[in-house]
Amino acid sequence: MTEKNNNTFKGGESATSGNVVSGATFPAATTAGIEAGPLLAKIDSPADLRNLQPAALPRVCSEIRDFLIRSLSDNPGHFASSMGAVELTVALHYVFNTPYDRIVWDVGHQAYGHKLLTGRRDSFSSNRKFGGLSGFPNPAESEFDTFMAGHASNSISAALGMAVATELNTDEPRRNVVAVIGDASISGGLAFEGINNAANTPNDLLIILNDNDMSIDANVGSLHSYLAQITTSKGYNDMRYSVYRVLRKLNLVSDRRKGAIMRFNNSLKSLLSREQNIFEGLNIRYFGPVDGHDVGNLVKVLGDIKDMRGPRILHVKTVKGKGFAPAEKDPATWHAPGKFNPATGELLSSGKGGATPPKYQDVFGETLLQLARANKRIVGITAAMPSGTSMSIVKEALPNRVFDVGISEEHAVTFAGGLAKDGLRPFVAIYSSFLQRAYDQIIHDVAIMKLPVTFCIDRAGLVGEDGVTHHGTFDIAYLRTIPGMTIAAPRDEMTLRNLMFTAQAADCGPFAIRYPRGAGRNADWRNEPRLMEIGRGEKLHDGDDVAVISTGPIAAEVEKAIAQAEAEGLSVAHYDMTFIKPIDEEILAEIHRKGCPVITVEDGCVNGGLGSAVAEWFADRGCARTIRRIGIPDTFVAQGTVAQLRRLCGMDAGAIAKAIAEVAAVENVHCQTQEGSGL
Amino acid sequence: MTEKNNNTFKGGESATSGNVVSGATFPAATTAGIEAGPLLAKIDSPADLRNLQPAALPRVCSEIRDFLIRSLSDNPGHFASSMGAVELTVALHYVFNTPYDRIVWDVGHQAYGHKLLTGRRDSFSSNRKFGGLSGFPNPAESEFDTFMAGHASNSISAALGMAVATELNTDEPRRNVVAVIGDASISGGLAFEGINNAANTPNDLLIILNDNDMSIDANVGSLHSYLAQITTSKGYNDMRYSVYRVLRKLNLVSDRRKGAIMRFNNSLKSLLSREQNIFEGLNIRYFGPVDGHDVGNLVKVLGDIKDMRGPRILHVKTVKGKGFAPAEKDPATWHAPGKFNPATGELLSSGKGGATPPKYQDVFGETLLQLARANKRIVGITAAMPSGTSMSIVKEALPNRVFDVGISEEHAVTFAGGLAKDGLRPFVAIYSSFLQRAYDQIIHDVAIMKLPVTFCIDRAGLVGEDGVTHHGTFDIAYLRTIPGMTIAAPRDEMTLRNLMFTAQAADCGPFAIRYPRGAGRNADWRNEPRLMEIGRGEKLHDGDDVAVISTGPIAAEVEKAIAQAEAEGLSVAHYDMTFIKPIDEEILAEIHRKGCPVITVEDGCVNGGLGSAVAEWFADRGCARTIRRIGIPDTFVAQGTVAQLRRLCGMDAGAIAKAIAEVAAVENVHCQTQEGSGL
Repeated sequence: MTEKNNNTFKGGESATSGNVVSGATFPAATTAGIEAGPLLAKIDSPADLRNLQPAALPRVCSEIRDFLIRSLSDNPGHFASSMGAVELTVALHYVFNTPYDRIVWDVGHQAYGHKLLTGRRDSFSSNRKFGGLSGFPNPAESEFDTFMAGHASNSISAALGMAVATELNTDEPRRNVVAVIGDASISGGLAFEGINNAANTPNDLLIILNDNDMSIDANVGSLHSYLAQITTSKGYNDMRYSVYRVLRKLNLVSDRRKGAIMRFNNSLKSLLSREQNIFEGLNIRYFGPVDGHDVGNLVKVLGDIKDMRGPRILHVKTVKGKGFAPAEKDPATWHAPGKFNPATGELLSSGKGGATPPKYQDVFGETLLQLARANKRIVGITAAMPSGTSMSIVKEALPNRVFDVGISEEHAVTFAGGLAKDGLRPFVAIYSSFLQRAYDQIIHDVAIMKLPVTFCIDRAGLVGEDGVTHHGTFDIAYLRTIPGMTIAAPRDEMTLRNLMFTAQAADCGPFAIRYPRGAGRNADWRNEPRLMEIGRGEKLHDGDDVAVISTGPIAAEVEKAIAQAEAEGLSVAHYDMTFIKPIDEEILAEIHRKGCPVITVEDGCVNGGLGSAVAEWFADRGCARTIRRIGIPDTFVAQGTVAQLRRLCGMDAGAIAKAIAEVAAVENVHCQTQEGSGL
Repeated sequence: MTEKNNNTFKGGESATSGNVVSGATFPAATTAGIEAGPLLAKIDSPADLRNLQPAALPRVCSEIRDFLIRSLSDNPGHFASSMGAVELTVALHYVFNTPYDRIVWDVGHQAYGHKLLTGRRDSFSSNRKFGGLSGFPNPAESEFDTFMAGHASNSISAALGMAVATELNTDEPRRNVVAVIGDASISGGLAFEGINNAANTPNDLLIILNDNDMSIDANVGSLHSYLAQITTSKGYNDMRYSVYRVLRKLNLVSDRRKGAIMRFNNSLKSLLSREQNIFEGLNIRYFGPVDGHDVGNLVKVLGDIKDMRGPRILHVKTVKGKGFAPAEKDPATWHAPGKFNPATGELLSSGKGGATPPKYQDVFGETLLQLARANKRIVGITAAMPSGTSMSIVKEALPNRVFDVGISEEHAVTFAGGLAKDGLRPFVAIYSSFLQRAYDQIIHDVAIMKLPVTFCIDRAGLVGEDGVTHHGTFDIAYLRTIPGMTIAAPRDEMTLRNLMFTAQAADCGPFAIRYPRGAGRNADWRNEPRLMEIGRGEKLHDGDDVAVISTGPIAAEVEKAIAQAEAEGLSVAHYDMTFIKPIDEEILAEIHRKGCPVITVEDGCVNGGLGSAVAEWFADRGCARTIRRIGIPDTFVAQGTVAQLRRLCGMDAGAIAKAIAEVAAVENVHCQTQEGSGL
């Protein structure tokens, strides 16, 4: 890491707001690149691509696949989705005048090919690394990345904004705007709201449904291909419009009849295709499905529908992992496979044996299964993340007790509210950054009614390589605003088990348990779960000069920092706030009596988090304290390893030790000299 | 108000969490009731209704309407929706075994008839009053109110939870579960997520689409009625199932073919009805439309489909305001008309002349129009609240510059992100409590990209009669977590205009302006808008003993409190934090130098709000201060007038004056005696 990357914030000081902190700009982190094929090597921007003949495009696709396989085998990332979208990516940049025309990707898993074609081929080896390329499209990185794409289902709404903007910006040439959304993302309510609004607003948005899962219709036959051909040809549409114009001229088309004619038209097609099409039910013109791996045909179809007016949907069928046999065969495993042998497809394990500490996710899954076996009222809910959350462990054993509701976090929470209202004990496992989507539902559909829903908040705190859109930064702060919400964070695996056991037995309304991505500390974690006292923390270490309060597994960093500080002669207490709300007031009173400065340490945003709760408590009592709040500063944080990012944010053991030394030295000055303290 | 109602919280102290504070239970606030008709007078619960003959039901409906007209003419509420749902309400309680069977209302506007039939007829005159009935269904009020219904689109998800719970609770008799959702609410993404999940989960949920707006289809003809009759008769369905069973027996139906047969069936019906039906596209059986004012037929239809298995949708056509001619003619005005003459339908104005201070909403609307005329990049967005927010003022003058996206707050924000990304200046006007729905979109689709979206947060703070689900409690706290977010609150109309002018000219990323429901203070409010310095507050009044920091129009309460305190000999400073983020550190430093105790006053939750920001600032600097935080305590607050609720929450002038006297008296003790301060 370069010196420049050590751009740390001091915890407890106000950081500059609103910048994404990423250490350095991405070229700095580039390591030895992969050599590209002869065509790809010459494509430094889509303009270079557009200079090629159509016949050359299959070769470009092949070179992109080859590059992705070699690069991702060594520097892991999201593999199968981008492999499936290669032809679509090439066709889009070939047909549309990017970046003036806008391509909005929905969830950037599919956008690696897009990165390679838009000037980031040589820096692609820095993908997802500290100071390197973001794993998702990010407008701060490239003008070709039109919008953030880390949370699903937003592309249609964002692209509709751009499509409407070009209607209103009449002093600039018209742009084409394209949203590319997967069949999983389109199930999100936000996408539906976007489609619904697109149908009722004047715009020329093209929505491309990249359907790699066959979840919408498994019934692709010759009739479909036939329809796709005729409905996307200029001739067909010219005819359709001619008929319409004649009817209009004869005054047979009123605005009201226009809708009826369109519906009739759609119904007829629907009957012919034996497929009920929800898009046409919403009055958006539908084309497809077309083969998403025939780049020549894709270019032709896109060319045909490019200049049509009005919102349209093109349904493209792709195969996840296309072009790499092991990934085609098992796309779930190959969604993000880690390192692998590019020649054989052999997955390279990280070398850990069975006795190493498990992931918190697996502790969650195995514990929930154990609890669910003992308490038949327990059910599990996941929003399209059964593997990521390890809810799959319960689903495999008790399939009727787990509900995968798809990408729909809002529904997941309200559904849990309904289950809880009629006597069940739902455990909702959602990543922290995605649970932001359900903030209102937690309040309105759970907390006001004090319903016993347990929120297992996965990926809480810094998540590492997924970066700015995926860090679980805000959950403590936004949950702490909600009356009656219990918020807990285990410092280790056994405490997670105890908290889950406590939650299913408690009668205190909603109960949130936040824990991080990845492995814990204890290979021997299978304790017998026990009831914990809600609102009770624990003193892990006594001392008099400074009191450190932490929550969650970052206690481990605090331990190291205290060891270092005590080696330098300081006496430091360490308290674990297992519960952030209700907070342990006995511990705070004990610290109050000690009269020493306080440091709070949390893997979450400092604005409104644990540190604020502690500051509020002392302020309410008029107590003179330096309270140094260490956590994620008031800024967006980019990707890197968790260790790198903790250092960047001033949350590692070294930074905590430094803070201990600082507050121990300055406290008395502040306490006794209020006037003229230099402010 | 009774003594019991003076159940105030002391600001700055931790309040009991998780209870809805409503003063008293509802019967206490009952005033002289309306006399009910002879049938209605004997219905104390739906069991009484179910003892009547079907022939008596039209009479019951008529008596409910008569009761509603007389009651609401004097004690205003939501009129037209409940009038339209009378027959549906009676039929549901007649056919279903409530409360064991579950009826989940989506947005309780339509549920007044339900309240009359479920034991709340005699207390209905307390509707929406302090200590009285909630204006929406509320499980805390009645076992017949199965779920909260203040925010739209949640009924399907909640009811699906109950429908799944009855599948799993095999040791209890099966329940029927019904969700009743309006045609506006069903456009919300949450409702779509619910439908989508209902189609893929084993359950017997009945969804009733109460369509009073003709927004789904204006084309109701005889064919529709015919289809409704045949598709809902037991005979038709028996036939359908018989055919299916025979095909199955002959081994002609595989699981895969089953879907194809259903789609073909639906397509055929769709063709016949000339209506593309999105529900059947989602594989939910659709019945209707049926006349929602023929109570006899509704009872028959509901009886027919009640015991069918699998998720179903019944489409019911109703007329908003049905049975009261003025309301049928102008349902928008009669949504919530205020007081009126029950005989003539004459609306009774509140008696205010033109010179009185306008509503903040109208200041917003007129200012936005003025700004939009001068800056063609400005556009307005509302989520189904053009009148409520007064965005209608802009829409009428500049129809192409305003987008009403329907009930879809998430889409509204992401759509604004797209508009801003391509150069426009969107002003998104959404009620504070509804903007909770878009917390993630504000972060992911606006703030990370620092896009210049202005959030005009209407109904910020206590809103009065709409109660617990509608108070704008949390916005300061949840927005303050977001890096780069500017948060402002004008203390008067002129400052609102200045802030809006500043926001459209600023280059600081997202900009939130929060203001309350209702009238301001100044009849003469049409100042020429001027640029404000972002992050700069204002000293309104100087003093030395206590410093009060407020934000927003609650400054008026502080002024009164200070006048009272100064009459008692105290010297009190008053600072207006026009900007909560970035906060004015010069003001805080000035207060620091004064060395006096601090009181913060805000019309928002004390956890994480302005007071926390101030406490954080002082804690960071190790400064000894009593900081008494006054605001909405950590509890849910029920309905009442704003004045009543401010008193309840300890936020009125009297409570602030009391706090000033208290902190002035105790500060020195805390400052000098840290040990043994009684904690």
